[in-house]
Amino acid sequence: MRILGIDPGLRKTGFGVIDVHGSQLTYIASGTIVVPTEQRLAARLQVILDHIREIAALHQPTHSAVENVFVNMNPHSTLLLGQARGAALCALADSGLEVYEYTALQIKKTIVGRGHADKAQVQHMVQHLLRLNGTPAPDAADALACAICHAHHYPLQQQLQTQQHVSPHLTRTRGGRFIGK
Amino acid sequence: MRILGIDPGLRKTGFGVIDVHGSQLTYIASGTIVVPTEQRLAARLQVILDHIREIAALHQPTHSAVENVFVNMNPHSTLLLGQARGAALCALADSGLEVYEYTALQIKKTIVGRGHADKAQVQHMVQHLLRLNGTPAPDAADALACAICHAHHYPLQQQLQTQQHVSPHLTRTRGGRFIGK
Repeated sequence: MRILGIDPGLRKTGFGVIDVHGSQLTYIASGTIVVPTEQRLAARLQVILDHIREIAALHQPTHSAVENVFVNMNPHSTLLLGQARGAALCALADSGLEVYEYTALQIKKTIVGRGHADKAQVQHMVQHLLRLNGTPAPDAADALACAICHAHHYPLQQQLQTQQHVSPHLTRTRGGRFIGK
Repeated sequence: MRILGIDPGLRKTGFGVIDVHGSQLTYIASGTIVVPTEQRLAARLQVILDHIREIAALHQPTHSAVENVFVNMNPHSTLLLGQARGAALCALADSGLEVYEYTALQIKKTIVGRGHADKAQVQHMVQHLLRLNGTPAPDAADALACAICHAHHYPLQQQLQTQQHVSPHLTRTRGGRFIGK
């Protein structure tokens, strides 16, 4: 499983690619798409669209994961971020990838162990989990964290679906484990 | 000049194509892209992306105009609308079109003569201006209204640019007319 993680933003969009073999995570690539601010909005969105399509074509991921954005900000910023996120999702869908979405809370809980970790802690844990020599830049770290989050959650999602299919009488408990009826 | 107007929305995206020869407007096509609601977000955005690209490929517009959305709503709705708008702008940019943006206020003022016209008045005026036999559906009417708005404003924008180029000593007044320094 090769995962392309995206942290969308209109000025900077982070990306990160990892390979997953069992519980083994391998770093493949990461970086930040820096969008020129002096252009018109449509041209800026096209920069995001084109770059993510290029990254997908180059690294051939099998899965994609995108951070669900925080909307408790002013409406104008929310709209701009929504448009950047729309461009990112379009690029992934256009590359034939199914898109999985995770909230910042889920990602931080998975990576750091608690939902209110700061950016530096996420960067540190991403560096540790992927055995990197240096600290990735914040946007790239967030994208890699999103990919790692998907690597953790996806096998469980698959397992739950299979269990539900095999044993329809099992009931899901609050903790996510299954018990017989 | 052939203009593709878009009224973006996550559930329904309106489109309208008109030809402009001098002050003569000719209706070419219009309709509504109805996005299936049961799909995941990325798949829904791809429906918008694909359909607008198809419409652009079919009708070969030379200009595109998109309604600037109203953001005074709840943050979640603003984010969803932003993503739909992002998909629409990506499709237009991907089709090689420069995108012009107009607010609902500008469009209504141009079409109906005042900014607080209701949907029915916009539909009626679009029908009248394009000499249509029937009333276009609301989303298609809004998209056609946006295209008509661009047809009105673009020649003026061009003229102003030319005047500014030819006569750098002219000063723009508040009313948009030029006077010598």
